[in-house]
Amino acid sequence: MADRHRVVILGGGFGGLYAAKALKNAPVDLTLIDRRNFHLFQPLLYQVATGSLSPGEIAAPLRAVLSKQRNTRVLLGHVTDIDPQEKTICLEDGERVPYDALIVSTGSESSYFGNDAWHTWAPPLKTVEDATTIRHKILIAFEAAERVTDPVERQKWLTFVIVGAGPTGVELAGALGEIAHHTLEDDFRSIHPSDAKIILIDAAPSLLASYPPDLARHAADSLKKLGAEVRTGLMVTNVDGGGVTVKASSGTQQHIASHTVIWAAGVAVSEFGKVLAQRTRAPTDKAGRIKVDGQLTVPGFPDIFVVGDLAYLTDEHGKQLPGVAQVAMQSGAYAAKAIAARTRGEAPSTPFHYFNKGDLAVIGRFSAVANVFGLHLHGFPAWFVWLFIHLMYIVEFQSRLLVLIQWGFLYLTYNRGAMLITGTTASQSAQSPKTAAAPGQ
Amino acid sequence: MADRHRVVILGGGFGGLYAAKALKNAPVDLTLIDRRNFHLFQPLLYQVATGSLSPGEIAAPLRAVLSKQRNTRVLLGHVTDIDPQEKTICLEDGERVPYDALIVSTGSESSYFGNDAWHTWAPPLKTVEDATTIRHKILIAFEAAERVTDPVERQKWLTFVIVGAGPTGVELAGALGEIAHHTLEDDFRSIHPSDAKIILIDAAPSLLASYPPDLARHAADSLKKLGAEVRTGLMVTNVDGGGVTVKASSGTQQHIASHTVIWAAGVAVSEFGKVLAQRTRAPTDKAGRIKVDGQLTVPGFPDIFVVGDLAYLTDEHGKQLPGVAQVAMQSGAYAAKAIAARTRGEAPSTPFHYFNKGDLAVIGRFSAVANVFGLHLHGFPAWFVWLFIHLMYIVEFQSRLLVLIQWGFLYLTYNRGAMLITGTTASQSAQSPKTAAAPGQ
Repeated sequence: MADRHRVVILGGGFGGLYAAKALKNAPVDLTLIDRRNFHLFQPLLYQVATGSLSPGEIAAPLRAVLSKQRNTRVLLGHVTDIDPQEKTICLEDGERVPYDALIVSTGSESSYFGNDAWHTWAPPLKTVEDATTIRHKILIAFEAAERVTDPVERQKWLTFVIVGAGPTGVELAGALGEIAHHTLEDDFRSIHPSDAKIILIDAAPSLLASYPPDLARHAADSLKKLGAEVRTGLMVTNVDGGGVTVKASSGTQQHIASHTVIWAAGVAVSEFGKVLAQRTRAPTDKAGRIKVDGQLTVPGFPDIFVVGDLAYLTDEHGKQLPGVAQVAMQSGAYAAKAIAARTRGEAPSTPFHYFNKGDLAVIGRFSAVANVFGLHLHGFPAWFVWLFIHLMYIVEFQSRLLVLIQWGFLYLTYNRGAMLITGTTASQSAQSPKTAAAPGQ
Repeated sequence: MADRHRVVILGGGFGGLYAAKALKNAPVDLTLIDRRNFHLFQPLLYQVATGSLSPGEIAAPLRAVLSKQRNTRVLLGHVTDIDPQEKTICLEDGERVPYDALIVSTGSESSYFGNDAWHTWAPPLKTVEDATTIRHKILIAFEAAERVTDPVERQKWLTFVIVGAGPTGVELAGALGEIAHHTLEDDFRSIHPSDAKIILIDAAPSLLASYPPDLARHAADSLKKLGAEVRTGLMVTNVDGGGVTVKASSGTQQHIASHTVIWAAGVAVSEFGKVLAQRTRAPTDKAGRIKVDGQLTVPGFPDIFVVGDLAYLTDEHGKQLPGVAQVAMQSGAYAAKAIAARTRGEAPSTPFHYFNKGDLAVIGRFSAVANVFGLHLHGFPAWFVWLFIHLMYIVEFQSRLLVLIQWGFLYLTYNRGAMLITGTTASQSAQSPKTAAAPGQ
């Protein structure tokens, strides 16, 4: 028997992991490489950032998920380069891993549109560490507001600005509203957490720009009820320790004083995505996404598949597909099936076709907006659909019953077991929130 | 009506928190001060260190626990000094907080017996951050063992040394044995995690020195079954990146090569404990514990109570009480009652008397040793008692049902949802476990 087909998957996110699982019974030697030892259920990351869930509750160790898949090996490593002619990828420590077929699913990173200095004051929400950094900033802000006596300074601690009113920004703003109005209600003696101002900013004329307009309006109404203010048509021109400066289309500038700014705007491709485009001279879009052909392979390299956020994909009308879990999962599974077909000597599959099941954004307790198979839902029905769908997906990695009960308690009791101020920076700031000029420093 | 009695509690551990809760209905103005915003259920910290539980599952935000207690204010701050004549304590940021009665429950820290440099190579297990550091070291060790090809180096990554065979060391060794033999069983392709060597070292002639000898023997047997080796009568003379050097009472030295050393020995009082002893000229024992009088107050200062690990307490036979949660809770509650009695103008209470309910150490799945009301149990019965007692205590902060179900799953499925390699150091090391000479650096 000849050596088995060597398949290498880069990245253990939705794209890579679903590709790996789809190759479970294929006669291949599979290697999944990731820098982190876990798969992250990113759609719930905002719940870690707001202290509703612990990191362990939305992550699953890759080895654990794939332990029974005997044709698969997990490798903890950082991919830095590729030689598409030699068919090898290179790891940071110098190791070279050969492949017969490669699935690249290294995803995206947050982008500050060239203003990387803003990162210091407005952390993004991409990784588990980002989420705990934001959780720390939010909790320390309430602590500092409780201790300062100057009303101006207090208001700065109680003002939270979220830049970017896509699904992540909307969900963050809603969760912050819940915290301020319900969860922390009785916790302080000098402040009323419900005095918190939550401001959601976007340069677009409306929030949730990719959603149907009626759902965007419902989302804005629901946010308003939670005390969050939506301010669209505003471009951020500066972020620093004192707050955010924004510019309206009319040209008027305005400064919003705040100690807590969160960045939920802007996406760029991963570092390895840039290297891949360079080595293969692949066409890309403005953000660096690789324009793959119908089979999701890099033009001229039929053995290199690109899936998930790194791929520039369009629907049948030529409209770009969003960088969401659904697209990553479907494109990852497609690449896996194409490779499995090749091992059987079958002809190339039909081109990739995205089956859009809809969009969902949760706003608060029992409140969400959903576009499911063209059906527009809001309020409790949308929230219920959201809960159901997320439970169905997350149970592949965790116990369905456990998560269900945990969430039940969370929603019924405004639980805050995960509201911990931890980490080195945490203990430093926590020693004197009163004098902490730069949160998170 | 005169101003209410101002009670200040320093520390939100078992001593401070139980004192605060006991003063719930007393006519006092209560301020609880802690550097951290959460109470930590320290007896389960080893389960965070071994990836069975997430930090959020064994911690409860102090504000949440005390939110309905309207006479109580929580203050996030770092106490640095005390003026016992003026009756004020000082915070790091300069704020001075006056008190009519003070309960000091600032606890203990780990001690390296003057060899603080060992801390770099052998982290202690006192804080949530310590626990995640150890979790990171353990998981990275298995990852590195999977990737190295040199058998000597591989064995160094698969050797785990725990210094200190008290309850913490025993529970850590047991949990590590469970991980190696069961949890990670199918996760690797180049190594067998059950090849891991777990070595538990103590200078004393036996493990669990404070337990009855028959239970200590049972514990040693149970550890052996999990592949952990107990080596007593050995004094640690050096710790560095290459391992541990030990000396037998005969004088023979020996080197144990290991990349993963954990420090579960040695306790010293908190920094503020030293300051308090200095300012009040209180008598202390060798470790710095304050020798309080029968009412748990500092001699000459009837308004300053010392409870928990910081107090030197003895039973009716003059035997020193151990630094465990039970002692802290009972002494904290005693101080609270004494203060409440004073506000009613009642005479001083009878001296503090510790009611010893027994000792418990869990070794593995369904395996523990327990000394409950003089009854010696081991194996499943001891484990069941342990589970029951811990559940009863932890439910004051979390949902009983949730924890019960969570633990049920944990024990039945060898769950490892919390096995995440996170943090800045984590992502650095994770990039190249192969070349990581110094784990956790």
